[in-house]
Formats: sequence, C-alpha cells, structure tokens
Amino acid sequence: MTFIRNAWYVAGWSRDFGRSLTPLTIMDEDIVVYRTEAGRAVALTDECPHKRLPLSMGKLKGDAVECGYHGLTFGCDGKCLRVPGQSNLPSSAWVRSYPLHEARGIVWIWMGEAEKADPALAFDMPEFDDPRWAPHYGDALQLESHYLPVADNLCDPAHVSFVHPTTLGSAASEDVPIQCERQGRTVITSRWIKDAPPVGFFKAFGNFGGNVDRWHYYYMHAPNVAVIDFGSAAAEDAIGEDERDRGVRLFALHFLTPVSETRTVDHWMHLRNIGLDDEEMGARMNEQFRIAFAEDKAIMEAIQQRERKPPARKPVRIAIDRGPNFLRRIIAEMAAEEAPREAVQAAG
Amino acid sequence: MTFIRNAWYVAGWSRDFGRSLTPLTIMDEDIVVYRTEAGRAVALTDECPHKRLPLSMGKLKGDAVECGYHGLTFGCDGKCLRVPGQSNLPSSAWVRSYPLHEARGIVWIWMGEAEKADPALAFDMPEFDDPRWAPHYGDALQLESHYLPVADNLCDPAHVSFVHPTTLGSAASEDVPIQCERQGRTVITSRWIKDAPPVGFFKAFGNFGGNVDRWHYYYMHAPNVAVIDFGSAAAEDAIGEDERDRGVRLFALHFLTPVSETRTVDHWMHLRNIGLDDEEMGARMNEQFRIAFAEDKAIMEAIQQRERKPPARKPVRIAIDRGPNFLRRIIAEMAAEEAPREAVQAAG
Amino acid sequence: MTFIRNAWYVAGWSRDFGRSLTPLTIMDEDIVVYRTEAGRAVALTDECPHKRLPLSMGKLKGDAVECGYHGLTFGCDGKCLRVPGQSNLPSSAWVRSYPLHEARGIVWIWMGEAEKADPALAFDMPEFDDPRWAPHYGDALQLESHYLPVADNLCDPAHVSFVHPTTLGSAASEDVPIQCERQGRTVITSRWIKDAPPVGFFKAFGNFGGNVDRWHYYYMHAPNVAVIDFGSAAAEDAIGEDERDRGVRLFALHFLTPVSETRTVDHWMHLRNIGLDDEEMGARMNEQFRIAFAEDKAIMEAIQQRERKPPARKPVRIAIDRGPNFLRRIIAEMAAEEAPREAVQAAG
Repeated sequence: MTFIRNAWYVAGWSRDFGRSLTPLTIMDEDIVVYRTEAGRAVALTDECPHKRLPLSMGKLKGDAVECGYHGLTFGCDGKCLRVPGQSNLPSSAWVRSYPLHEARGIVWIWMGEAEKADPALAFDMPEFDDPRWAPHYGDALQLESHYLPVADNLCDPAHVSFVHPTTLGSAASEDVPIQCERQGRTVITSRWIKDAPPVGFFKAFGNFGGNVDRWHYYYMHAPNVAVIDFGSAAAEDAIGEDERDRGVRLFALHFLTPVSETRTVDHWMHLRNIGLDDEEMGARMNEQFRIAFAEDKAIMEAIQQRERKPPARKPVRIAIDRGPNFLRRIIAEMAAEEAPREAVQAAG
Repeated sequence: MTFIRNAWYVAGWSRDFGRSLTPLTIMDEDIVVYRTEAGRAVALTDECPHKRLPLSMGKLKGDAVECGYHGLTFGCDGKCLRVPGQSNLPSSAWVRSYPLHEARGIVWIWMGEAEKADPALAFDMPEFDDPRWAPHYGDALQLESHYLPVADNLCDPAHVSFVHPTTLGSAASEDVPIQCERQGRTVITSRWIKDAPPVGFFKAFGNFGGNVDRWHYYYMHAPNVAVIDFGSAAAEDAIGEDERDRGVRLFALHFLTPVSETRTVDHWMHLRNIGLDDEEMGARMNEQFRIAFAEDKAIMEAIQQRERKPPARKPVRIAIDRGPNFLRRIIAEMAAEEAPREAVQAAG
Repeated sequence: MTFIRNAWYVAGWSRDFGRSLTPLTIMDEDIVVYRTEAGRAVALTDECPHKRLPLSMGKLKGDAVECGYHGLTFGCDGKCLRVPGQSNLPSSAWVRSYPLHEARGIVWIWMGEAEKADPALAFDMPEFDDPRWAPHYGDALQLESHYLPVADNLCDPAHVSFVHPTTLGSAASEDVPIQCERQGRTVITSRWIKDAPPVGFFKAFGNFGGNVDRWHYYYMHAPNVAVIDFGSAAAEDAIGEDERDRGVRLFALHFLTPVSETRTVDHWMHLRNIGLDDEEMGARMNEQFRIAFAEDKAIMEAIQQRERKPPARKPVRIAIDRGPNFLRRIIAEMAAEEAPREAVQAAG
C-alpha cells in the first residue's frame, strides 16, 4: 500500500522542536527537524549524501547542520555550504528540504511535490479561535500498524461499544444503526444513542442526573485527519441534532502520520466546551482518552501482526464497513492522481 | 517440511483450559480454546473473519465467543450467531471448529479432515487404568526447533550416554549396540546395558546395592507420540527381557505438537511402578526429567540455529541413524497419503 | 561484498584460548578454537558433520573434540577418530582444520587455501622487540558493520577532527590537507598539524607547555591491518618529518576480522615510546582510545543501519575519499585474484 504524498502531515507538536537536531521517520524517509536562530522550523533529509551518516548525529552551526563524520555543512534550503579540506563544493552535495507549516502549536510537513505545498490546505478549525472552546494537546501515540487500518477505525463509530466499554461506549449502543456519507474527500459517519445512561466519560465530566442523548460524529478527512465530534445532553432537554453546543461537547482530533508500512504515529488532542479555564479537567479528560486509545492500539497492533500472514480467505463484509469502504475508495483516487507523477519520475 | 494433519495432537493438559479464551498456535494456525458452561472443550480458529482480530481478545458469552472489535459472535460449531447493527448474517461469517477429544487429563486436537477424527485413534495405554501404575503429569516444554529433529531424538537411545550423563545415561553404554525395528507406523529402538553401576536416576530412586541391568525401549508412534520404557533391575536377578515389571520401571511419554516450522511443544509426563501413592517421588522424578529434557532442548535449538544456513555438505550417516531413518520414511509415506487431499483442496 | 580469504586474520589474543572449547564466527564460518595439552592452538569447523551440532557444545578429550550429541570425536587435523557404537569410520566424517599462527600474544587464522598460509605473511613490526617501545594490549571491539567501512575509516585522517574532538582531534585540523599514496597493498594517508594547541590525548600524556606539531600517519595494509602512527612534539623544537621519535609517539594497531556481512571485530592495541614501564599509563591511554573508538563505532553502526536501505542516489565524492578509494581498488584486485580459485572450486 503506497502513501499519499501530496498532503500535510503532522511532524510533531511545536513544543517538540528547538535548537537541537530531532530525527523523525515519515513514510520511510529519514528526516531531521530543527529551528533556526530566528525560531523557524526546518526539515532536511537526515542523511549526509557523502557517507550516509544521519545528519542528526552532527551539530547545529547557526542555521546550518554540520555532518558528524567529515563536517559537510548544509543550510536550511539543503544546499551544501562547506566541505572541509577543499574549496570547491560538488554540485551533487545537497539534501532535500521539506516544506513545513506551523500553526496552532502544530508543525506540518509536506511529503510530496514542493510546489503544491499550500499552507491553506493544512487542517484548521475555527474553534481554535473561539472563546467558547478550549484546546488541550495530547500525545504522540505510536502504533505498530499501517496507517489505513487506523484511519478505518476513525470511520467506524460501531467499534466504540465493544472496544471502549468503560469510557466512550456502552452496550446500549451496540445495535444502533450508523449514518454514513461521503462529502468530497471526507467520510462522515455518525450515530445518536438516545435516552440511555451516560457512558464513563460523561459520568466523569457531564454531571448528569439521569439519562442522556449521546452523539458521535466522525469526520475523516482523507488521508490523515480525523475530527470526532461527540457529546451528551440531558435526555429531557431533547436537543436537536444542530443544537449540540447545548450539551457537553468535545472534538477529539487525530492526526495520523505514516512512519513506515507497519508503523504510524497518531498525534491526538481535544477541544471542549466546558471547563474552559480548567487545565486540570483537560488533563483528566486526556487520561480517559489515553485508556481508550490504548485499547484501539492493542487492536490495531494485533491485526497488523495477523497481516504478516496472507489471509486464508476473503474478509466478511458487514453493514458498518460502509465508512471504511468510502475511505479506501478516496485513498485509491488520491493514489491514482499521484501515480502518473511517480511514473514520470521513475522514467526521468 | 510439511506437517501431518490427520493425527491427534495434544492441545494441552485438561487443567490448561476453562471458562476463558486461551490462544494457541499449532502448525502455524491460530486457535482459541475454551470450555462451554457444561465443561466441554471447544477449539475455534482464533481470528474473526471480518477484520482478523484474534477472537481470544474478545469475550466468552455463554458458550459463544464475541469478537472484541465489532461484536461478531460465533458458536461452538464456528457459525456466526450475531452481527451487531444488522439482522442478516453473511453466509461467509464462520470460523473453523476443530475436533477435540479429551481423556486421561489430556485435550487432543485434530488438525486434518474432520470426518477422519476418530477418538479411537488417539493415543492411550492400559497402564493408565492399571492399579500397579501411577501417572504423573509434567510440563509443556517449548523448543525452538522443527518437530522432526525432536522426533528423531526419540528414535535414538544412543544420545543418552552423551547428552544425559548425570541422569539417564553413563559412559558404560556408549558402545552398546542398538536394536531397531519398524512395526507399522511405529519405530522401536532399544538396548540393554547389562551389569553396570546404576545411572543417576536409578541411584536416586532404585535403592540398588550393586550393579544393575538397565533397559531403554523407545516406541516412537509417528508422527508425534513417543513412549520411552526404561528401567533397571539388580544384575544378580538376571531378569528376562519380558520381566521388566520386576525392576523399577517407568514410561516417559512425549507428545509433540508442531507450533511452526521452527517451534515445537513437547507435553511430557510419566507413569511409574514404584511409589504409587508418593506424589512427592513423582515430583522429584520430574525434576530429573526437567534436567534431562533441558539438555535435549539445548541441542535441538542449537541444531535449529544451524539449519538457518544451508548445509555445506551432505550429512555423515552412521549406524545409530537407522531409527530416525525409519521415522522419516514413515513420515514421508504419511505426507504422500495426505498430499492428494491437499492438491484437491487447492484445486477446489 | 565478498571477503578476502588468503590473508591472516586475528582470531583472538593468545590469552583468549586455553583448554576449553571457544566458539568464534569469522566470515560467517563457525569455528571452535582450543589448545592441545602441549599448548598449541587448534581451530576446527565448529559443526559436527553428523547432525550439525556445534562441536564447541561437546568436550575436549586430550587433544581431540568429542561431539556432545553422539560422541563423534575429531583430532587436531579434523579427522574423525571415533564413532561410538561402530568400528568403521565413514570417510565423510571429518571437519576442516584451519592454519593458525601465534606470535606477539596474538593468534592469527588463515581463512583461505591452506598451502598459501605462510606465517611470514602475518603482520609484525620490529618495535615489538625494541626496548625503546612498550606494547599494551587493548580490546576486541564488536562493530555492527561490514569491515570495509571500518577499513575506509582507517584510510581517513580527516574524520578525526569531527569524530574525536575531545581526544585525538581538534577544530585546528579541519581544513589541513591530507597526503595520500599507495605502496603495493598498503594505503598511506597522513597529515601534520603544525603549531597548534595539543589535543586532549597529548594534554593528558605529553606534558607540553605550549603549542605542538602533531602528526597522523595511517598505514592501512589491505585487507585488514592498520597501523596509526601519531604523536606530538613541541612546536619550538621544529622536528623534521623523520624525527618523530623525538616527540611523544604512538602506534595504534587495528586488526579487523569480518564476522559476517554486518559485523566486524576490531582487535586493537598500542605501542608507545614514553612510560615504558608504566603499565598504568598504558591503561589510561587505552581509556582514551576506548572513548575514541566508541565514537567510530557509533558512526560505523549508524551507516550500516542506513545501508539496509538501497541508497536513493550516488554518493558525493570529495577530496578526502582518495585513501578509501585506493583501498577499495586494492580490495577489488585481491578479490579478482581469488575469484578464479573460487570459480574452479564451484565447478569442481
């Protein structure tokens, strides 16, 4: 399974990078990230083109990187600035410089054609600027899984009842049907569980006296960003589908970054409409998310292990697969769009 | 090297299974074993046909298993009983249910064609019911080795002098010739070491004052069950070959189960004709066996390591290879018998 | 990359071998080394030709080795002396015996054609016998790297400024040009850094009051032996290139032994012309070497990791590559010389 390259991927939280050389792997490419003296984030191929030593084993010299083996030095744009012991610089001495975009405490990297790296394409949502919402950053969860099964899981509210019974789901939702639609390159799956006891998360944070209406909306923006809108409101309030702000409402954000064919990082965070100044509440919510996402991780990784053997037969298809099926179709379309470029490159 | 499928293999001791989901791997197949509410052991393919999650990561619901990802539920016969969120059950939603047979505290599994799974074919011996014999269960020894070199070792009394010098053998037997014959699908190798000091095991348990006659009879029932009849009698008694019950006599049983091409489990136990009510003596005997079988394990695993490289030349053949050679011929015959079935399956 | 077989390689220090069976791997061949009762070192293939058990898991019996599985016994020349249980010895029952040469506390092994194993070809230097020099043995450094990048590093004084800034190099030498020549099968690279502060090593051992002239001469004797002549003399003494004995001078010796395509052992030691009776000084010098060689190891191993992926493009060539380029050409010549022999063997 190939990766979609023309998209913004999260390289890390802004707090992850500074005046040191931080190695990353994305789509099997070794990358070193650092900040210039002025604070701008830079991403270069993490390999000296002379002897292949990772540049991240070298030193930052001003805004440039000096290789730790023979001192070849590369600037922010990837051009070689110095070869010790000689005055001429070989024209082949350069490394790739990746387009970066930093906003909302997130550093995004563009893995595809540089000329298409439009910052306006990077994910954003207005609630980051809205005083009725508080953002709270989470973790970089490592999963030993290809990113697509993780993305499938983010088009699939049905798993919540079985995988997250103590936090985000309960048996009450097991048989509630799921709505599913495709809008451009986004898959939207959702369901409402009406008039049921609050699940663990909303017992902890909702302060509800009786039954609630609970919703889950999963917006999976292919290939790599998911926004999960979920919340609960007192059942007696009988709120409408468009009145979700009247309840306790959260957006859980997942930014998937493929590391390799068998590893993915999920940078996750949330925004909430309660306890806006209560950092401690945000931290406690993240504790609940950590429990839930560790449950997902266990499942993704067990499946990845199984994928090492070819399947004995065709997978069973069931109704709740509609969301993941939409996603895979979008991914196939995006891959086909990129394929000619690759073919041209390979031929060139 | 292929496996012989139409045979009973030990899945585990009866005590290993209960009202929980126990994952096993046999012949590279993932299997989950549990007991019904009535106590019957059940073995199913340990993989949901929807997303390949191991069913053993799910839950036991009555006599059925619920997948931990989306709640697909399978009965003892492997048929799907429920797909949450929909009323129709896809005909492809089933898992394999393996024939089991439980007797003598042992759970046997049949890896081949279900219609051939005759419980009468499972290994048994009358001494289990004989008041002059006491059985004592042992361990499930993991060996990082294909099962055939382990089975070879169980047609090979010659190794005992060199591999087990402190417990089961001694230098006195190094050059004593070995008898070898084939009876149907059983290889019988044996030798008597006459009028020699008792070996470690019989020093510990035989209470002999002087020299003994010692015998080793290895019955290797292809492909996977070995019965080792060994014992000692005072040399001065000069017992006949058929009077072995007059001495201290044991049956060490080995049940080999191939896990993969490079891993085997050896479930071993013994029956003895002394100390019938002395559980503590049985436990001390097992301590001696543990020492000896760890010695075998070290050798099997070192050889398996070497088998990762192709051999530089043809192996040397020596006289004591007759037993293993018989065994390999029987295995080849059994494999040939099964081959047409596989060809038919592959074509079907 | 193939190995050069017709050369003496270090099997170990003399102190490493005694009256026990020591397993080694060289060029992917498993070898067992031991000493006879008379003290002579012997090296045999570490694999019984019967069942492939490592002979090093057996026992030393006089000057012969008894296999730990069935007791086959092999003499110093590799011929089978005994097969227990039978009187005839199969002609195929033998193992290879490798030529060894022991001198200066070092055991050398010849991996190629035995008839070419001339002890006079083994590395030696007159300073071992010279009362103005003291030898001091070092370690057997394991590197997870093919041996050729390690050998490249020993034709490359340029790396010292960047890799060993606290011990053997300093920024003062970064741009000093390197002399390079080939003499037969030896690559000689060198440079003098004149009138600069002493580097860490000579701060610790030179007792210099002011600036020094420092030299590095790397003699890389293909395929596997490097002699590094380095030292410092007071700049005010203005010594000539041939007057190096007037300064503090050391020979660091590196003996590379390929274990496999991805592993090398570097047996290293030094000779020095100061503190001849001061064993403690030798030990402290080795501490400095240990720091420096661990720095080399980190770089070699990082590069080996990268070599697991095919390179994305051709490596950049720079001026300081001349030494390694000479070396690779010599290695190619030696490999070509051996190739016909191999072709003949393969055909035979």
